[in-house]
Amino acid sequence: MEVFLDQEQIAGLEKLERAAMVNSITGFKNANLIGTLNSEGNSNLAIFNSVIHIGANPAFMGFIIRPDSVERHTLKNIEERQFFTINHVNEKMYKQAHQTSARYPIEISEFDACGLNPVFKNEFPAPYVMESNIKIGLSFQERINIQLNGTILVIGKVVQLYFPEHAWCLDGFVDIEKAGTIACSGLDSYHKTNRIARLSYAKPDKDPVELEMKYK
Amino acid sequence: MEVFLDQEQIAGLEKLERAAMVNSITGFKNANLIGTLNSEGNSNLAIFNSVIHIGANPAFMGFIIRPDSVERHTLKNIEERQFFTINHVNEKMYKQAHQTSARYPIEISEFDACGLNPVFKNEFPAPYVMESNIKIGLSFQERINIQLNGTILVIGKVVQLYFPEHAWCLDGFVDIEKAGTIACSGLDSYHKTNRIARLSYAKPDKDPVELEMKYK
Repeated sequence: MEVFLDQEQIAGLEKLERAAMVNSITGFKNANLIGTLNSEGNSNLAIFNSVIHIGANPAFMGFIIRPDSVERHTLKNIEERQFFTINHVNEKMYKQAHQTSARYPIEISEFDACGLNPVFKNEFPAPYVMESNIKIGLSFQERINIQLNGTILVIGKVVQLYFPEHAWCLDGFVDIEKAGTIACSGLDSYHKTNRIARLSYAKPDKDPVELEMKYK
Repeated sequence: MEVFLDQEQIAGLEKLERAAMVNSITGFKNANLIGTLNSEGNSNLAIFNSVIHIGANPAFMGFIIRPDSVERHTLKNIEERQFFTINHVNEKMYKQAHQTSARYPIEISEFDACGLNPVFKNEFPAPYVMESNIKIGLSFQERINIQLNGTILVIGKVVQLYFPEHAWCLDGFVDIEKAGTIACSGLDSYHKTNRIARLSYAKPDKDPVELEMKYK
């Protein structure tokens, strides 16, 4: 049986029920930890599942932030310090990663509170997550205020990138499944993945074929 | 071994290699088909992997579009007709979904060319994908031009929602894994998922616990 809800029925749901539903229908999302430093040099860490690709050249990535959430520490720090890190979540530390969404006071580092280790690499001025297998350092580029509901799109440029060598494919693709990265759905559901296939670049006159995985 | 690349090394990669790499490092993404009608009433369908949650009340969803890509038909149609659909991709039709990214001429419907069926439901003025198990109808709300690189964030409001009853949880969560939705990485890699756990709402003073899945 198929459930059908219209906009009045969605609006009429209880608040938490609506949040759980609407957050789950986007499809699978990434699970990423964003690391920052505040003006006193104290570290902050928060989980996000709205990281998106904005462009490849230059390499731009963005994420959506709610100004009224605990995540405001992240935005404040990025605007003050101009740098942040994006760190992939894996199965070994997804509970610690989830725990960073608790509303800790600003003087508490989620690294300490949640049992994850900050690491500074190649003079990048924001903390990476040691337990993450894929780590990205970004410089802040632009804040876009979404007038509709007060959310904010934060865009950064990739200036450092770390990933496991065994996950690097000949064509440049980084096999994040092989690197242990997990997926998320809704606000709280974490998922391992199992590749069906990579498909060839689509052209109008032929069917896509499955690509062989070729690592460097 | 960990690979380290800085921004000069990323910029120095061959174009397709850089695109493959940068598109894969966001983490897992959704795979969604966006359905529209043009001014003559002809249908268009294109795969996107940048759908994001913008808000739950009202229920807003967005996606990123490159103006110079084949996907411009989607943007033109949304601006002209004000309505579009988002349809989850599943394992049974992921090859047809991928094939919609080929550069078909504007007079060709990707539904016909790729072997997917349009369906119109409850007087919504854009085509849903019959083969999708989760279907969302949206009204166009806002176009935000990202000056940095000319990409565009398109935001819609959810006005219709269809999903399988067996995937509906008591707390409102829609179990998209149970509904057959698959994940994507990079530009061309498709993945089934296997839930590790849902975790309880994080609070500073206690560890998260695994939630039991309870369906309606």
